[in-house]
Amino acid sequence: MVKVGIVGGTGYTGVELLRLLTTHTDAEVVAITSRAECGRRVDDLFPNLRGYYDLSFSEPDVHVLAACDVVFFATPHNVAMNLVPELLAADARVIDLSADYRIRDASLWSQWYGEPHASPELLAEAVYGLPELNRDKIAAARLVACPGCYPTSVQLGFMPLLANGLIDPQQLIASAASGVSGAGRQARIDNLLSEAADSFKAYGVSGHRHLPEIEQGLSDIAGESAQVTFVPHLLPIVRGIHATLFGRLNNDSVDLQALYEDAYAEEPFVDVLPSGVYPQTRTVKGANRCQISIAVPQNRNTVVVMAIIDNLVKGASGQAVQNMNIMLGLDETAGLQQVGMLP
Amino acid sequence: MVKVGIVGGTGYTGVELLRLLTTHTDAEVVAITSRAECGRRVDDLFPNLRGYYDLSFSEPDVHVLAACDVVFFATPHNVAMNLVPELLAADARVIDLSADYRIRDASLWSQWYGEPHASPELLAEAVYGLPELNRDKIAAARLVACPGCYPTSVQLGFMPLLANGLIDPQQLIASAASGVSGAGRQARIDNLLSEAADSFKAYGVSGHRHLPEIEQGLSDIAGESAQVTFVPHLLPIVRGIHATLFGRLNNDSVDLQALYEDAYAEEPFVDVLPSGVYPQTRTVKGANRCQISIAVPQNRNTVVVMAIIDNLVKGASGQAVQNMNIMLGLDETAGLQQVGMLP
Amino acid sequence: MVKVGIVGGTGYTGVELLRLLTTHTDAEVVAITSRAECGRRVDDLFPNLRGYYDLSFSEPDVHVLAACDVVFFATPHNVAMNLVPELLAADARVIDLSADYRIRDASLWSQWYGEPHASPELLAEAVYGLPELNRDKIAAARLVACPGCYPTSVQLGFMPLLANGLIDPQQLIASAASGVSGAGRQARIDNLLSEAADSFKAYGVSGHRHLPEIEQGLSDIAGESAQVTFVPHLLPIVRGIHATLFGRLNNDSVDLQALYEDAYAEEPFVDVLPSGVYPQTRTVKGANRCQISIAVPQNRNTVVVMAIIDNLVKGASGQAVQNMNIMLGLDETAGLQQVGMLP
Amino acid sequence: MVKVGIVGGTGYTGVELLRLLTTHTDAEVVAITSRAECGRRVDDLFPNLRGYYDLSFSEPDVHVLAACDVVFFATPHNVAMNLVPELLAADARVIDLSADYRIRDASLWSQWYGEPHASPELLAEAVYGLPELNRDKIAAARLVACPGCYPTSVQLGFMPLLANGLIDPQQLIASAASGVSGAGRQARIDNLLSEAADSFKAYGVSGHRHLPEIEQGLSDIAGESAQVTFVPHLLPIVRGIHATLFGRLNNDSVDLQALYEDAYAEEPFVDVLPSGVYPQTRTVKGANRCQISIAVPQNRNTVVVMAIIDNLVKGASGQAVQNMNIMLGLDETAGLQQVGMLP
Repeated sequence: MVKVGIVGGTGYTGVELLRLLTTHTDAEVVAITSRAECGRRVDDLFPNLRGYYDLSFSEPDVHVLAACDVVFFATPHNVAMNLVPELLAADARVIDLSADYRIRDASLWSQWYGEPHASPELLAEAVYGLPELNRDKIAAARLVACPGCYPTSVQLGFMPLLANGLIDPQQLIASAASGVSGAGRQARIDNLLSEAADSFKAYGVSGHRHLPEIEQGLSDIAGESAQVTFVPHLLPIVRGIHATLFGRLNNDSVDLQALYEDAYAEEPFVDVLPSGVYPQTRTVKGANRCQISIAVPQNRNTVVVMAIIDNLVKGASGQAVQNMNIMLGLDETAGLQQVGMLP
Repeated sequence: MVKVGIVGGTGYTGVELLRLLTTHTDAEVVAITSRAECGRRVDDLFPNLRGYYDLSFSEPDVHVLAACDVVFFATPHNVAMNLVPELLAADARVIDLSADYRIRDASLWSQWYGEPHASPELLAEAVYGLPELNRDKIAAARLVACPGCYPTSVQLGFMPLLANGLIDPQQLIASAASGVSGAGRQARIDNLLSEAADSFKAYGVSGHRHLPEIEQGLSDIAGESAQVTFVPHLLPIVRGIHATLFGRLNNDSVDLQALYEDAYAEEPFVDVLPSGVYPQTRTVKGANRCQISIAVPQNRNTVVVMAIIDNLVKGASGQAVQNMNIMLGLDETAGLQQVGMLP
Repeated sequence: MVKVGIVGGTGYTGVELLRLLTTHTDAEVVAITSRAECGRRVDDLFPNLRGYYDLSFSEPDVHVLAACDVVFFATPHNVAMNLVPELLAADARVIDLSADYRIRDASLWSQWYGEPHASPELLAEAVYGLPELNRDKIAAARLVACPGCYPTSVQLGFMPLLANGLIDPQQLIASAASGVSGAGRQARIDNLLSEAADSFKAYGVSGHRHLPEIEQGLSDIAGESAQVTFVPHLLPIVRGIHATLFGRLNNDSVDLQALYEDAYAEEPFVDVLPSGVYPQTRTVKGANRCQISIAVPQNRNTVVVMAIIDNLVKGASGQAVQNMNIMLGLDETAGLQQVGMLP
Repeated sequence: MVKVGIVGGTGYTGVELLRLLTTHTDAEVVAITSRAECGRRVDDLFPNLRGYYDLSFSEPDVHVLAACDVVFFATPHNVAMNLVPELLAADARVIDLSADYRIRDASLWSQWYGEPHASPELLAEAVYGLPELNRDKIAAARLVACPGCYPTSVQLGFMPLLANGLIDPQQLIASAASGVSGAGRQARIDNLLSEAADSFKAYGVSGHRHLPEIEQGLSDIAGESAQVTFVPHLLPIVRGIHATLFGRLNNDSVDLQALYEDAYAEEPFVDVLPSGVYPQTRTVKGANRCQISIAVPQNRNTVVVMAIIDNLVKGASGQAVQNMNIMLGLDETAGLQQVGMLP
């Protein structure tokens, strides 16, 4: 039985890790930390977990965490990068759901996150935890940086096109929309139901922190510099990301449907829909799954890809569990068999 | 491996049965019928099930269904009562999610459902499938009538008080609210998002079909005639029932919190919350669970009970699976361990 | 042209006053205060007002406010009671949308609001601003305390029954539900979309601050002490209150439909629906209107009244404007002719 | 007082016309037709209108309609094109909210709407009713074709760029999202709250009926053939359209903010937001207003325009009233001064 520690368990990725892990037959959560809620029972804060966990939040303690087989950081950025060096030194494996180790270039990270990186020496070692791209490296990693939610959907959506050189990597457009849970469980007026319900808006148009992560990933895939115009939007729903992606085709003789089906044929958590069927975010609500459709409207030279995930599952905690399974040699689908809740 | 048949699989209770049964280790769906969608793959209609079922809808066929260990009717009323006699004659066990066998009095049934009952001879045999009330009878039953969604929440909420004679059974009030999925997957203007969103209303105030079922059940529990003023409301959400129940206390010396905790101590799917904590419907979204709170505001003589369920799970398909497990001697919680999806 | 000042204009009642007053031909907002947003343009914070106001938030200044014909307090409780004495001394008229002057008994107020009252000498003078009850007193008042949102709906719903002695005032039940905007524009985790959407819950069951206000009002109407079991619930919508009221009838020979229609025949903002038609909160969204239905289910002795309002309009800012019109001798409906936004 | 007739008043554009016209001081609705609801009071179907109209639905009667100064068609496509010739012959003015006269090329219309056009001889005369483009022609028109909701937002968003030749008209992308009311008040499973809530999806990707209308309009503006990749999405809200538009800049020396502010400086219903402020659909809910922002992310060569409207107001009924005002020489803003309902 794998012993799991979770740092920062009071947010949405924390409770989602706990929900998913109730169904994992080979892993057990032994510690979950929170300074603010120290001593409080987990199922008092999250009553959906009553009967499933006999755990309370505790102060973060390196000795306790280092004794775990794997430690998840379900924290805002700027926490993991301070604690991880000590945990690695104590031989723990770490899966960071935050942004701290996603960008390889420390100065680029600093530019977007507004502070120096606290452990830049680990950036080269950290593996970007997108299994569909880096499965082998993840299996060998000590430190995995889980991708952001938008970057997961955008990269899975563009990957087969870019990897095969079928679109211009300098003219990529990603118009994406996310549910409000992506903003975390923090008291902010903008995310009140009274502010965000019954409405839709773009935000971060001039520059969202996921942009450099997306461009780094797409450049890796394309093998050359990629540029994306990335416009995120806020959906008046709790969970779900829908990425609508546009690319300029440089080849109109490829069967794109077959290309995508082949590219993801062996992937347990990427599902290419039949031609003409478009994904709905509700279909993957609660599930560790990315559903993708591809279309070329009017047979012109612009290709449209639609990719959906649940931002808290394939976009965060589910992908983190998937990474854990790969790192520890467990069944990759363990704990991740939840069916999307429709309706 | 138990062989399961489902009659009428295109509605919300049908897809929910399928979702829950993906996690049931001892049951397998072998037939699912729909006249309208005959021949269509189940996962084409419900893409959340892609990869989980290799099934298509078929015409209802008594031979195929009778070969199942258990047949669920996930149909509107008026279907089961016509088919069930033949299935029972062929030695099948039947769990009816519709209203056809819930009311023991055929003339009362006719009065509320507007037509004669097609198999009144089975009404005496049919067991009312509320496990917390009738577990032993269910275990021995051939035919189980699954309770309605409102009746489940109202009966579980009032049960300890009425069973112990602590409130006046002639002065019961149930102000309940349900998500729209309770109205089924039918094209009706009233249930369009444009009509039902951003709004709240009472309906069926002069008489809802669940009223006679509720009064029959509460009378059974109380051991005397019970009268309820039942006002259902429509919530602008998909899933969830919240019943707010009011009773006139005739005894102020009983520790009601302890009474409820004791009454449900052994029940796997009824969870009495700590004193002062009130339930939220989201906490049980997707879970086969009823959460209950009890309060006596201002220490006066009116007791308030709040009971929540997911109308599609403990209020329908989950309860149906629970009944199956009891009827067939399986682990009562098999297929029913989903944690409520919060947030 | 009436000169209007608004203290505390950054909340939902503030922006709603501004929205309504754009249509008031005899009133003009000349000052709106906010310490936090001092200097910021009103239409920068509330872009729906672009083109309608050339105003910025200012520091509260007694001289400026006293020069207005009427000053609205759109503040949390505990603000008005400190400023109002000075404004009245300077001959201003005041309409307080907060709770500071709603309860006549200073010690009862302190018990529910947790602090001493700062100007208890004004409690006897303050007029409770429910026009349907106190129109003449309002017309003569210097200081009007606008009713709370729940109390408005509960009092208008029960009024004809209690005023005519038709129900037992000791056995009143009010099961009410409100949209989230009732909690104000404050950063609180509980009111995030991710927490409040797709869910429904009761709150304040052991005692909500509107309870003493409701009981004071209903006792006044009944002419004897009234007791209410009041259970508020949180709706996953922005605007709207639905009160479902229950009373024990002591007389079954009265035509209740006619009673209600007569009682409100002359009221411009109370609309008794035809028998058998139940109100929906969306019908009055944005409108200064209370719609009411009355029913006696199964012809038993429990009467059910349903009353709806928009909590920000007839439950707050609209009622405040109505009070202003009455106080200043203007057309009572000026600025209040908005039709409910359906769909 | 202008006499107004409405054909097909039971849908959302019908009730919205009625809502807006309650505030129009120079227009009066004298007839509203519906075959299905003939004889029913308008305020019985739409209780938000109680007290505002003393009207019932009637059978369409050419004599009655022809006696009106203006007749609105608030019908699905395929109705107006059969009735309009007779009304024009009787000297009525007609404003068609449906698609029948939006596309000048009858064969193109037939290709997208699947049937022959019934009055192609009027297509050349019909004026496309986008006032910001065609105000003078509208003033002189007998027959105005109101633009579709998506086309309104897309054209207003792209207009200054295309009119000034600043982007490549062959590489336009429009990723737009609409509330469900855009699909009308029709009983369809896809638009049930249980199907559309808590979700987001693209639809019509291979070809939406608004595509030829958009391309016709943008070609007119650009003065050359325009091609758009148009991907509409369904928002889980009632009202609102958000168009996120992408174009390839061919000139980086123009001050786009100033360009937009100048282009719309005299337009009463187009509001260019300050640089860096992005629009939210809720800000114009219920208002006849288009709010627009423009950005050039990372100073690259892709420009992003965001344009929002309420699909039922500036996208339908409000624009229709605006057209009426222009046609009849009334104040263009009469009946259209509603402030967006925020929150």
